[in-house]
Amino acid sequence: MRGACLDDFPVDIKKYWSARQSQFEKALHRALPAATVKPATIHQAMRYSLFAGGKRLRPILVIAAAETLGGRPADAMPLACAVECIHTYSLIHDDLPCMDDDDLRRGKPTSHKVYGEGVAVLAGDALLTQAFELAAQVSGSKRYHTADFIREIAQSSGSKALIAGQVVDLECEGKKISAQELAYIHRCKTAALITSSLRLGAMSANATAPELKAITQFGQALGLAFQVIDDILDITQTSEQLGKSAGKDLAAEKATYPAILGMDKAKKEAARLTNLARTSLKPLGKKAEILHAISDYMLAREN
Amino acid sequence: MRGACLDDFPVDIKKYWSARQSQFEKALHRALPAATVKPATIHQAMRYSLFAGGKRLRPILVIAAAETLGGRPADAMPLACAVECIHTYSLIHDDLPCMDDDDLRRGKPTSHKVYGEGVAVLAGDALLTQAFELAAQVSGSKRYHTADFIREIAQSSGSKALIAGQVVDLECEGKKISAQELAYIHRCKTAALITSSLRLGAMSANATAPELKAITQFGQALGLAFQVIDDILDITQTSEQLGKSAGKDLAAEKATYPAILGMDKAKKEAARLTNLARTSLKPLGKKAEILHAISDYMLAREN
Repeated sequence: MRGACLDDFPVDIKKYWSARQSQFEKALHRALPAATVKPATIHQAMRYSLFAGGKRLRPILVIAAAETLGGRPADAMPLACAVECIHTYSLIHDDLPCMDDDDLRRGKPTSHKVYGEGVAVLAGDALLTQAFELAAQVSGSKRYHTADFIREIAQSSGSKALIAGQVVDLECEGKKISAQELAYIHRCKTAALITSSLRLGAMSANATAPELKAITQFGQALGLAFQVIDDILDITQTSEQLGKSAGKDLAAEKATYPAILGMDKAKKEAARLTNLARTSLKPLGKKAEILHAISDYMLAREN
Repeated sequence: MRGACLDDFPVDIKKYWSARQSQFEKALHRALPAATVKPATIHQAMRYSLFAGGKRLRPILVIAAAETLGGRPADAMPLACAVECIHTYSLIHDDLPCMDDDDLRRGKPTSHKVYGEGVAVLAGDALLTQAFELAAQVSGSKRYHTADFIREIAQSSGSKALIAGQVVDLECEGKKISAQELAYIHRCKTAALITSSLRLGAMSANATAPELKAITQFGQALGLAFQVIDDILDITQTSEQLGKSAGKDLAAEKATYPAILGMDKAKKEAARLTNLARTSLKPLGKKAEILHAISDYMLAREN
């Protein structure tokens, strides 16, 4: 999240993001076993990828959704840490030679490049496992119990969502696919966990059913918009700007929105989805201010 | 679990095992997404490894511990399914070329041989995730809640237990290690999940603190005994008898009990640990009959 465009935003979203991110970084450091805990290799590898300079989008969404509905950041924090563990595990495994085979992530060598493939697989496994241990720390709210939080995470990262997206993505490499199939991949690989992050935050703040519905619809639109932008940036930005290998999707003949719809239509689709996200927030009224700001902020990102 | 030696056992343990296993197989079939659920590849891969003819030791331990303390098999069943998902995921990932590089498991080609490495990694991830979704189904007992079950599974399969064992095992390949270090690996890789299986069953049956303590000590001794026997069988049995590649440990210069202590001492250690397991059950008195029988049964196994 950098670049000149950010100066156009009202100060509060930049301040908000930075304040919550700083709280989150501290919480995440405390939540994970120290790098010296035996066996040091695995705990170093877990921390290497977790603290590689991510934007913390998903944890911020957990916290923002909680605050939108009157919850406290501290109560949502174990869930914020859990979704970042899930996100990071999925990146480590996606980067493996047997998957997307990527050497760079956020401008740094990927886990398997530093620790070898075996430890990279295990670091991903360990972060996935850690996520559930963290989520089990949540005391819950009147309407939602531990089981609801665990189920939410398991389903959005399971074989019918996050993992489903990666499987179909692998299967589609080098094949021509429809815009509909592409939307399925993006819904699974990206939108599911973004939606779940918002839902978890809302649930920790004891969301009513209509509130949870609005938050869910917002997340689905925002998550798809986010992925379309990611596809666009892969083509328009250099590796240095992205902090990861640029043009990889093109080189791997990966299906992307620009490849299927053309660049202009892809950009319009991103804008359409962001508008849809804004509309979804209407039932929440003024309370949703920070979620609106986050959604605008995300659309203008350059990496 | 076959071979002439089994005829020496009282009929009831064979009957018990077979009856509970049959209940478990049905429950596991129902617990997992059907092989036709999109994306079919991942659900087929999950089921391929889950239903590859395992002995179901860990699920039987969950159920037996529950019954020992007056619980019903049906109440423990989601936990039994969860530990089998964890065990199967760990086998799939351990067999990967970047780990132990094994082509055969239970007499069948390993997951990555059938589905490719990418899908094998994801099938393991999906089973690990599924385990927590299943555990969240447990209604809990008076003393133990959902969070306790989730924490139990996460800790016994996390970076300080199951995964720790695999990391240190990887790091020790080709190196000389002490009997103490070897015991650490075995405690992590095998004993932790076996102990946890027993604890989960006991917790589902509302175990008292002294009961849980006895069950835990039993599990730790039994789990180590089980692994020492596994090491011994790797040397003394053929691949056909084992249903997996025999002599792999020796070929990979893996540290094993027979390699470090010699075969005689390794066999004595297995017997010593089994006696320790029996002693641990004393506080449970007559109630522990089935756990005694299972422990005897496990020591006499040929594969």
